[in-house]
Amino acid sequence: MSKLTYTIIGTGALGGFYGARLQKAGNEVHFLLNNDYTHVTQYGLTITSIDGDFSLPHLNAYNDVTKMPKTDVVILALKTTNNHLLPKILPPVLKENSVVLVFQNGISIEENIAAIIGPHRIIGGVCFLCSNKPSPGQIHHVDYKKIILGEYTSDYQPVGITDRMQQIANDFENADIPIELAEDLLFARWKKLVWNIPYNGLSVILNASTNEIMQNTNSRKLVENIMHEVLAGAKSSNRIIPDDFISYMLDYTDKMKPYRTSMKIDYDEGRPLEIEAIFGNSLNKAKSMGVHLPIIESLYQQLKFLDAKNRL
Amino acid sequence: MSKLTYTIIGTGALGGFYGARLQKAGNEVHFLLNNDYTHVTQYGLTITSIDGDFSLPHLNAYNDVTKMPKTDVVILALKTTNNHLLPKILPPVLKENSVVLVFQNGISIEENIAAIIGPHRIIGGVCFLCSNKPSPGQIHHVDYKKIILGEYTSDYQPVGITDRMQQIANDFENADIPIELAEDLLFARWKKLVWNIPYNGLSVILNASTNEIMQNTNSRKLVENIMHEVLAGAKSSNRIIPDDFISYMLDYTDKMKPYRTSMKIDYDEGRPLEIEAIFGNSLNKAKSMGVHLPIIESLYQQLKFLDAKNRL
Repeated sequence: MSKLTYTIIGTGALGGFYGARLQKAGNEVHFLLNNDYTHVTQYGLTITSIDGDFSLPHLNAYNDVTKMPKTDVVILALKTTNNHLLPKILPPVLKENSVVLVFQNGISIEENIAAIIGPHRIIGGVCFLCSNKPSPGQIHHVDYKKIILGEYTSDYQPVGITDRMQQIANDFENADIPIELAEDLLFARWKKLVWNIPYNGLSVILNASTNEIMQNTNSRKLVENIMHEVLAGAKSSNRIIPDDFISYMLDYTDKMKPYRTSMKIDYDEGRPLEIEAIFGNSLNKAKSMGVHLPIIESLYQQLKFLDAKNRL
Repeated sequence: MSKLTYTIIGTGALGGFYGARLQKAGNEVHFLLNNDYTHVTQYGLTITSIDGDFSLPHLNAYNDVTKMPKTDVVILALKTTNNHLLPKILPPVLKENSVVLVFQNGISIEENIAAIIGPHRIIGGVCFLCSNKPSPGQIHHVDYKKIILGEYTSDYQPVGITDRMQQIANDFENADIPIELAEDLLFARWKKLVWNIPYNGLSVILNASTNEIMQNTNSRKLVENIMHEVLAGAKSSNRIIPDDFISYMLDYTDKMKPYRTSMKIDYDEGRPLEIEAIFGNSLNKAKSMGVHLPIIESLYQQLKFLDAKNRL
């Protein structure tokens, strides 16, 4: 099977990591950069990783989408807070049968992207990756790396495992990235929110790491209450996450190293927070089915206040 | 009518202000102090006030309840976070027919005090006072001063306006403190919580003044949602606060000077927060009637986390 060609839209801690691994495995990869463009054209990318460090001295780097070739797979790895740029970014890099992999946080993101490029060439990716970018061209891979891939269709009707998913999964697995193929993308997205909503939200609101949140009886109970609301949200989309998934996630977090969430890192760096993708869209999805999630709504409102004040 | 004699338990920004006004009006007043005792015995109390400044160079100051005389009226003006001390403080200063005025925040406080001194000599006072104590013996009266008095009875059954309420009200009004006599103490307490719960809570959680909270659309909507839950709590006690009280309170807060709430001041000073009196007791009261208040519960849990971390 011939290898696919890849475009990375957003060469940050996530897009840079996966793109570098694909290139190292022999795939043709083209990287879109913004602030780090000059540095990376000169020095390339360096990955420090729990799996072993490596460098890519030379890569196909761009700071202008109109100069990029059209590839088989376009990996969308921008923060969702930049998605207003997509109507300009996506069309130039797509050919007729290109697939867009949406490696972004939150829920309902694919619906917005479908409005730009149509519903038939989108695959969602739920990424479990701890990484950061301490300086330009430097990516530090801390833990995990698995991706769950699922086909997007209008209304998120499951369509099962397709050939193109399988082909992309092969490339990733050759690049040492474990892939899980999901029949139901929306179910996978809701499941990830069971973790993201409480911990991303409370880490910012309470100025706390995951272990601080877990060690206090009250905030731990709050996490649990929030998780129950996420399950109610999922249920409103007819996705039934069993109750014992909550104790599993609490237990999983207890065993994690103390962790500063991605939203807390964004907040500390003064960057905009992915509140709409993670919180706003979840609330809207549940609300459209007549389900009210009062605690998540209050977290949303608190975060909107803090984010606005943080960027004054 | 002979004037009543008074004891002030807790000569802070609130107890000190009301006690000073009573003494200035000619009442016999005895003040219990703690940290400020030495300073006040030497220099007395100074009040700076929107109504005009005054000093009391000499006052009956004590730092030991067992040395205090028993008076007609005992004003309880400690923070509720010190109420574990009351079994030692109250009995020595009470005679057979002394009345205890509970000038504390929150709800259900009188029930705990009744457990110490019996239910028949308690009058609740809902104080609308903006004051602070910038240094020992110095009280700064910023705004408002009205008190709503209501008789306490077991289960908060309204008993109407009594003679002793009227007599105490006369003394306060002679001291230029406006008094409103309430037939239903619990109703007055729930009404004050419509303001205290959202603004005290969010000022700490969001590190914000009242005007910042009001100017952001999201936090303003959150305030409104919280006020609706307080109304649901009141309703669980069969106290019906009309919906338009919410727009009245929002409007009232819009017109206030930017204000740092008492809970925010306590937080900034590293003092324990009155979370149980204001939030915990409200939740318990509603819960005992089968009513769940999810947003207030999450504020409670957030505040408990922040308070614990603030005092490490």
